[in-house]
Amino acid sequence: MSIDYKKELEKASKTMILVHEPDTLIKMIVRMLVQKVKVSHANILLHNHIADSYIMKVSRGPLGLKVPEGFTRMDNDNALIRIFSEEKATLFSSDNTIVYPKAKKILDILVKNENSDLLRGALYQMEIFDAVACVPCYFQHDLLGILLLGSKKDGTEFEADEMQFFVALASDVGMAIRNAKLFKDLTDELDKRKALFKNITKALAAAIDAKDNYTGGHTDRVREVSQKVSDKLSQKYPDLIDDAFSEDLEIASVLHDIGKIGIPESILNKQGPLSPEEWNTMKEHTVIGEKILESIQELENCVKGVKYHHERYDGTGYPEGLKGAQIPLIAAIIAVADSYDAMVSDRPYRKGLPQEKAMDEIEKLAGKQFHPDVAVAMVELYREGKL
Amino acid sequence: MSIDYKKELEKASKTMILVHEPDTLIKMIVRMLVQKVKVSHANILLHNHIADSYIMKVSRGPLGLKVPEGFTRMDNDNALIRIFSEEKATLFSSDNTIVYPKAKKILDILVKNENSDLLRGALYQMEIFDAVACVPCYFQHDLLGILLLGSKKDGTEFEADEMQFFVALASDVGMAIRNAKLFKDLTDELDKRKALFKNITKALAAAIDAKDNYTGGHTDRVREVSQKVSDKLSQKYPDLIDDAFSEDLEIASVLHDIGKIGIPESILNKQGPLSPEEWNTMKEHTVIGEKILESIQELENCVKGVKYHHERYDGTGYPEGLKGAQIPLIAAIIAVADSYDAMVSDRPYRKGLPQEKAMDEIEKLAGKQFHPDVAVAMVELYREGKL
Repeated sequence: MSIDYKKELEKASKTMILVHEPDTLIKMIVRMLVQKVKVSHANILLHNHIADSYIMKVSRGPLGLKVPEGFTRMDNDNALIRIFSEEKATLFSSDNTIVYPKAKKILDILVKNENSDLLRGALYQMEIFDAVACVPCYFQHDLLGILLLGSKKDGTEFEADEMQFFVALASDVGMAIRNAKLFKDLTDELDKRKALFKNITKALAAAIDAKDNYTGGHTDRVREVSQKVSDKLSQKYPDLIDDAFSEDLEIASVLHDIGKIGIPESILNKQGPLSPEEWNTMKEHTVIGEKILESIQELENCVKGVKYHHERYDGTGYPEGLKGAQIPLIAAIIAVADSYDAMVSDRPYRKGLPQEKAMDEIEKLAGKQFHPDVAVAMVELYREGKL
Repeated sequence: MSIDYKKELEKASKTMILVHEPDTLIKMIVRMLVQKVKVSHANILLHNHIADSYIMKVSRGPLGLKVPEGFTRMDNDNALIRIFSEEKATLFSSDNTIVYPKAKKILDILVKNENSDLLRGALYQMEIFDAVACVPCYFQHDLLGILLLGSKKDGTEFEADEMQFFVALASDVGMAIRNAKLFKDLTDELDKRKALFKNITKALAAAIDAKDNYTGGHTDRVREVSQKVSDKLSQKYPDLIDDAFSEDLEIASVLHDIGKIGIPESILNKQGPLSPEEWNTMKEHTVIGEKILESIQELENCVKGVKYHHERYDGTGYPEGLKGAQIPLIAAIIAVADSYDAMVSDRPYRKGLPQEKAMDEIEKLAGKQFHPDVAVAMVELYREGKL
């Protein structure tokens, strides 16, 4: 081989450690082996925790030698696995690797016993995959995987310094695989937590929805429409609307009516119009929502959406009569989505408006009840058939 | 130096990449420099994103040279920072490092200009820290930090191969720091998510608590007592009670009365005894709680705690009349904690029992209303003054 092992190894291990997606990492390693080290083909057998066996993850090389991914699986009692997991290859080679021609010669002069049987079994496995050299990857003493290398393209045999390179590489591969797995476990756990949070808030909001006889599914629709409006507006407000804003909006839209939990059922479910006093009590759901959530520091922006989703652009809303730009954008978006859903939904005492009429209404109220840009975004969504 | 650079470097970078706590990592690197490489002292200047400057993270060596952690901070326009961040050290040394005696000699013969001023400033900074050699750590082209090394203990000067070792080491340090930071960001984010989840469930449960006029703070007390009972029981049930159980129990105890959201206020807040019909409606809060949460797959075990926290050991409870071991342990624990809090809390129509009397009651009901082991754990906690 014409490469400078040390340099190649350093470069490789540096790149490997940055790859946190185990599958991508494995593919990268095999590609490097075939391209840089110039072997005819290379495979990796990788330990799988769930199956508690070793699975051929990727293989590369001329089509005839390419083993389909996941096609081959070796159990813990397979000779090739055992010879490395029990670290018995050290009986036959000083560097704990197997190079086929050398090992074959050793086997020919060995007395038949348990260890020679193991070597024979391992060599038989190597024949199946047309592997000329096998190098184990450990993390501490756990066998994480085995590199299986085909013959060198230049036809020469593997030299001691080359095997030394592979052993060092395999050690880095072991570390990189472990690092990538740790990352993957963490990101998986994070995704699970995010989903759990989303699901529990949705479930609880839905339960509160269910108290309010008129509004079945209201919360979920407001969440959906709010997201669409926000996506639409993000072109106009690229500095305001980022991933964090979207996430806050999702939580706030789900929880916008959470304060209704503090409103007496007699008012919440009253058939017919509310008295002025009852109406004042009803309006308190905005500040009750704030109270419920205000101790949670991470929800600071969400709380604004919950508290101010009944403010109006012209200052005639509640609870504080904020005007124009004083109203946080997150609240302005929920306000339009909330009103839209109220307009088009049926109520016991009236039928919901057709979408077209609701849009006329929203257009008419832009700059009065609604933030003009938000109202425009809503109408555009409708015109584009996205609502 | 008597060490085998290559081996030491490989070993070091392998250990480094496994350390995911940046501060521990930095300490480890400095310790290694002083012990293995045998320099009088070593410091690391590390870039801090929030302060947008470089902070002396740790220093090690004889007391006189030890700089207190965080004591020194260098801004981006500091000469020592600029010479490396602008990669201008390459003007004076082929390997982009600064070795003081050599650099001093170069400075003496340089024409005074912008670059010689920069070198002069950098050397002045090195004098302050008694640093003989400076080696930058980059990730890609971002200057992550600078290693500052004191003089060699054997009194000789740094040789080219030693500097080569430090440059390679610094490159690994850069990678390890970045890897550790990524891990820390992920685990921080995960911790934040866990806290957020806990806080939102607590806030919503407290809001539901508030509906039920009698039970201010009830949910939070049930959570606390449940955890204590579970900790106590973990010695007896080491296979059943692990971290996952504890977490499920915490969620389930917080949400155990979530189904009350579906019970009419007229029943929930009725002054005086409930009629048999009203009582049947009240009992439904267990299955309503189940309905609210059952779609969330991750809460499968929590749902059991919510649904069955009114079952009794002798089979006379609700909703299903489960008996003995049929009742999930998570529910049996919440049942005792819930009853205990009801016993000792004041109600409008009666005063709460003294703790001692409540314990007599729980002991008496062990094996009847309560799981005997859970009841015993509760009483033991009280006797130990832990309740």
